[in-house]
Amino acid sequence: MISVDLNLIAAQLEGLEETIIARLIDRAQFKQNAAAYEPGKSGFDGAGNETLFNIRLRSHEEMDSMFGRFCVPEERPFTSNLPAPRRSVKLPPLPLSIDDFDRVNSTGEIRPAYLDLLASLCTEGDDGQHGSSVEHDVHALQAISRRIHYGSFYVAESKYRANPAAFDKYISSREINGILELLTRPEVEKKIIDRIEAKVETIQAAANRSIRKLVDPGVISGFYRSSIIPITKAGEVRYMLNRKAGIS
Amino acid sequence: MISVDLNLIAAQLEGLEETIIARLIDRAQFKQNAAAYEPGKSGFDGAGNETLFNIRLRSHEEMDSMFGRFCVPEERPFTSNLPAPRRSVKLPPLPLSIDDFDRVNSTGEIRPAYLDLLASLCTEGDDGQHGSSVEHDVHALQAISRRIHYGSFYVAESKYRANPAAFDKYISSREINGILELLTRPEVEKKIIDRIEAKVETIQAAANRSIRKLVDPGVISGFYRSSIIPITKAGEVRYMLNRKAGIS
Repeated sequence: MISVDLNLIAAQLEGLEETIIARLIDRAQFKQNAAAYEPGKSGFDGAGNETLFNIRLRSHEEMDSMFGRFCVPEERPFTSNLPAPRRSVKLPPLPLSIDDFDRVNSTGEIRPAYLDLLASLCTEGDDGQHGSSVEHDVHALQAISRRIHYGSFYVAESKYRANPAAFDKYISSREINGILELLTRPEVEKKIIDRIEAKVETIQAAANRSIRKLVDPGVISGFYRSSIIPITKAGEVRYMLNRKAGIS
Repeated sequence: MISVDLNLIAAQLEGLEETIIARLIDRAQFKQNAAAYEPGKSGFDGAGNETLFNIRLRSHEEMDSMFGRFCVPEERPFTSNLPAPRRSVKLPPLPLSIDDFDRVNSTGEIRPAYLDLLASLCTEGDDGQHGSSVEHDVHALQAISRRIHYGSFYVAESKYRANPAAFDKYISSREINGILELLTRPEVEKKIIDRIEAKVETIQAAANRSIRKLVDPGVISGFYRSSIIPITKAGEVRYMLNRKAGIS
């Protein structure tokens, strides 16, 4: 059984921070490369108007889907109509009270937030490395998405269990603001933002500046503040609204 | 034009060390999961006797090949009979004197060396996370392979240019030991090994031990010593033996 201990869940989310930071820094080694995100400029045979970014994301998710990635709640796909898994994935008993994980799919918010980030994360211009750029985009998006959905499911369930009567009141009356207020812990959010800035510094401390572009810690902490944290909380609300009554 | 300045090439190789270390540590978070490497145990529909590891590596390379990954010299595929690229990749002028990059493909040595490493890198046993394990294997293998092939092409060409007459003598007489001796710089190898150990320490210094398995720095530096460095040098020899006369 996966734990609903909020400290353990928070530790998991903390562990995902290094991955997100590392993958954003990796992407920042390439320029913005705007053409990779423009319809009709993929240079990919038979792709029509689809962007190179989108072709890469879809191709990767089609492969991942066959391997069973999206059987796990925290792995939600950006792409619809994916092929069915070709292997059975045995999940441990999950402490969640929801049948359809895709009720809590925030990829529609993650994708535009990430694409907007590229303007501050990467140097302006085009270095011709479009294939590498979109490859790193997919890795970064998958890490961000895992963090957001892990929080949306497990943090929400854990908070629910700590205070079921209060949540049930707002859930039954569909009071989103009430749910959001019960979920929010400003002191934890502040701690996360500070920790992200410190980690970005530490991770880049030993980088060889002659070959590596350094990323301003404020760019990544700002992305946490403006996107990762609010999208996670919106996902937690979505989980609450779709939660089956009782504790499984 | 890509530089053949040995200091810049060494800096590139140094930059790849962080990626290799991070990906090996990521793989170490899962158990050995031997079944993922055993024929007939993939659990993948229609896969017959192919291992799950091999299916993942092949699927990933089939996708990468369509995006043009293997047009670049330092990206050599582990899989044969891959689909043709579906986009054209514009290479900058390369300072290399070789027509067929696959003359210097060391993946046949990298794959078994990596699979042998798993016994010391990962905890014994099976945690059921076979899909994640082979996904991380592919990421680690690609990072290791890029480092080895980058060295095999660019370090070799750079060393050749610093000493063409001496290399030409051994190349024309096919004296592999002579080439190897000219290539070898024991003091640089020692510096790399020491730096790897220090980096593994640093990268894990802030890890939360309640959720992360720590990797012994000696395991990764030992892999550099026993595999990455010698396979790179064997690749450099292969490059020299297949080098076209003159400087392009």
